[in-house]
Amino acid sequence: MSGIRKLLIANRGEIAVRIIRAARDLGIRTVQVVSEADQDMLAARLADEVRVIGPAPAPKSYLDVERILQALRDSGADAVHPGYGFLSENADFARRVAEMGVIFCGPDADTIDRMGDKVNARTAALAAGVPVVPGSDGRIADLDSAVAVAEQIGYPVMVKAAAGGGGRGIRIAQTREELIATVPTAMAEARAGFGDDGLYIEAFIQKARHIEVQILGDGNRAVHLFERECSLQRRRQKVWEEAPAALLPETVRQELCASAVRLAEEVGYRGAGTLEYLYDMQREAFYFIEMNTRIQVEHPVTEMITGVDLLREMLLIAGGAPLSLRQDDIRCTGHAIEVRLNAENPERHFFPAPGVIETLTLPGGPGVRFDTGVYPGYKVPPYYDSLLGKLIVWDSSRDGALNRMAGALSELDIGPGPSTASLHRALVQDPDVRAGAVSTLWLEDWLKARAEAAALAKSA
Amino acid sequence: MSGIRKLLIANRGEIAVRIIRAARDLGIRTVQVVSEADQDMLAARLADEVRVIGPAPAPKSYLDVERILQALRDSGADAVHPGYGFLSENADFARRVAEMGVIFCGPDADTIDRMGDKVNARTAALAAGVPVVPGSDGRIADLDSAVAVAEQIGYPVMVKAAAGGGGRGIRIAQTREELIATVPTAMAEARAGFGDDGLYIEAFIQKARHIEVQILGDGNRAVHLFERECSLQRRRQKVWEEAPAALLPETVRQELCASAVRLAEEVGYRGAGTLEYLYDMQREAFYFIEMNTRIQVEHPVTEMITGVDLLREMLLIAGGAPLSLRQDDIRCTGHAIEVRLNAENPERHFFPAPGVIETLTLPGGPGVRFDTGVYPGYKVPPYYDSLLGKLIVWDSSRDGALNRMAGALSELDIGPGPSTASLHRALVQDPDVRAGAVSTLWLEDWLKARAEAAALAKSA
Repeated sequence: MSGIRKLLIANRGEIAVRIIRAARDLGIRTVQVVSEADQDMLAARLADEVRVIGPAPAPKSYLDVERILQALRDSGADAVHPGYGFLSENADFARRVAEMGVIFCGPDADTIDRMGDKVNARTAALAAGVPVVPGSDGRIADLDSAVAVAEQIGYPVMVKAAAGGGGRGIRIAQTREELIATVPTAMAEARAGFGDDGLYIEAFIQKARHIEVQILGDGNRAVHLFERECSLQRRRQKVWEEAPAALLPETVRQELCASAVRLAEEVGYRGAGTLEYLYDMQREAFYFIEMNTRIQVEHPVTEMITGVDLLREMLLIAGGAPLSLRQDDIRCTGHAIEVRLNAENPERHFFPAPGVIETLTLPGGPGVRFDTGVYPGYKVPPYYDSLLGKLIVWDSSRDGALNRMAGALSELDIGPGPSTASLHRALVQDPDVRAGAVSTLWLEDWLKARAEAAALAKSA
Repeated sequence: MSGIRKLLIANRGEIAVRIIRAARDLGIRTVQVVSEADQDMLAARLADEVRVIGPAPAPKSYLDVERILQALRDSGADAVHPGYGFLSENADFARRVAEMGVIFCGPDADTIDRMGDKVNARTAALAAGVPVVPGSDGRIADLDSAVAVAEQIGYPVMVKAAAGGGGRGIRIAQTREELIATVPTAMAEARAGFGDDGLYIEAFIQKARHIEVQILGDGNRAVHLFERECSLQRRRQKVWEEAPAALLPETVRQELCASAVRLAEEVGYRGAGTLEYLYDMQREAFYFIEMNTRIQVEHPVTEMITGVDLLREMLLIAGGAPLSLRQDDIRCTGHAIEVRLNAENPERHFFPAPGVIETLTLPGGPGVRFDTGVYPGYKVPPYYDSLLGKLIVWDSSRDGALNRMAGALSELDIGPGPSTASLHRALVQDPDVRAGAVSTLWLEDWLKARAEAAALAKSA
């Protein structure tokens, strides 16, 4: 059914499990690489074959290109899926894999280079007629040109690392003075963090919603699978995602999705990708901000409203099949919400809380899905991100999905350690969240207000 | 949202959990009645209120009309949902509930009387132009008339208790001699088992498939939600169910579903109901056999292919709302399969194996649903049926659903006691099951062949 025979999963946690399930459904054998700390994870139990690639720290295992290439050679796998994070958007890794004659489940290295670089992606967007946030047309040469650009577009501005992503490498400057202070630091950080000190500057849109479009392409043709809204963020990390976006005018939705297909076809995109946009509610205008050339954490909400298995499509396309979906076949039905459950304590500044999962009682019934990499008795290691799982619900309407999420969260029992389930139980009852009237700053403000109220109650 | 404020659940196990979830999604408070043996069941944990109604044996608790009516009075609930089994098709119970001014979530007592009696249901079917299996037009008066009918339609014939159901109260007579021997026994059994010695006779169709149509009605109008196939049966109990039916010609499907709507509208049906048919593959002909005037165990497969929450619709209709669905809005997408997981040992004649659930690792990911009334640490009591849960999968095609079921079953870990998961792991790989080429006798033959092969291997 697929051109892939044996797939190596170069990732861990829930996404590794997700990839194994998709491969298994297609009859593809799976090889799971694990760090020494991850030998008991669920993906290692489910894979056909397990290979220990190095010690716990990611740079010595999941981020170590040489070790992963060695595991590819040793296992005889003919394809590798990078998941999200780690090496998923590393063009050098994709190139090395291709040079071995092995299939990389994602776009080719040149496309990752082009779209992974925010400046190049912006250029491609402009070429495809996709609106972008006003800013420097390319990398800024130096501090003087940064100031000149900022004066032209007006403060506040964002200073972004060209090679950054996922909210990392971004700074805000409210004034000329702040910009002058920020640029040298941002350059040094970008060099240290991404090996590339390139920066660019954009107008900072203060009250925006984060809306993104899922696309699939086979190099010739692309389709969109509607949009997701991920405005609820903490420290620029998404914590709650929905599909479709609430309160988005239908004409805007159509333009947004059409623009994503245009850009994907412009660059001859192959695989699954996401185009991220900021949406200005007042102006009803959207601006392309960046593309993620990989599967995203929040992909299940799209699967729930479309019935399309995105990981399966990735594997089929990577295996050489043309895109099987026609745009007219893809329908958006109902509404889906995903919440991320992290092993963190929302009452104590989201301090990570790794440890043994002793209790894991999952909600069930219609429209409820739980994607996880843990199981009862599993010890969550302290070395990686703290995502325990994702609770996803679907219902025929957004109100229905909110009610179902509230019910599912009331059933979920994951412990004994703290998790962000308690945060989500509060969010799902909040009037602003229920109305869908949130910006990307809303959650930070809400958390601050809650912390202040708690401090006040304590001192009273 | 619903005309119901507080709902009493007159059932136990997974269906009680299912009803609670549906009520919760609509903002309805829930009262769970429990026997003394059931105080720890999942439904008791999830309900807003719990009432102990009597000792473990069902006749003293879940089948005791007086105790349940007393719990209704004490709780102040304004509605009762009977689930399946127990009092769900007991017209006297429905009548007593209505007389109290409480809503019974199902059709009225007269409809239960009419459609629950196979002879009356057959008459209604004939009136609606729905084909029925040739047989006695009503109850047989005595042994002589039984023989006369059988001679006319030809052997083999089925002798059925008019008040039976779910495969109970059925006997086959291959010859005149067998019929003469069977009738008096069947009468005595029917009197003892159902308090009614009425019998009727039908032609016995040897190689048939069990196909049933889900309907919803509001008393004025009815819609169908396509068909289910439940041909894999052991001792006339369904063990594996699918929607839609495999290998059913499209024209037959349309006729079948249309006939179900016709019959439901003919009797002014209100609530969820299922019309069961036998389908003769060779003649491509279907015959109505009986109606179940309640929700069925296998309802989730219909929910998976239509996206309609059947329990929610039942609650809305019971609360007084007109049917919200139009036939054209109900689409069949993809394919769903449900397997019943029972605490029974398939290697030892399906001997019941109650006990503590120590391990419960559930499969997950897209298109996977698990409906259960148990949780890790729960002790399955020995007093009731042995259903632990239902694993339901959906995919865009039947082959996809079979692969996904195989994968989900490989992940499922429920123990330490035996369960029918091992049976389903074998069935999902079987060529006949995969081809969809099974009759209602297939599973019994397959089990016999397997037992003989095992005995042979042992003696060798």
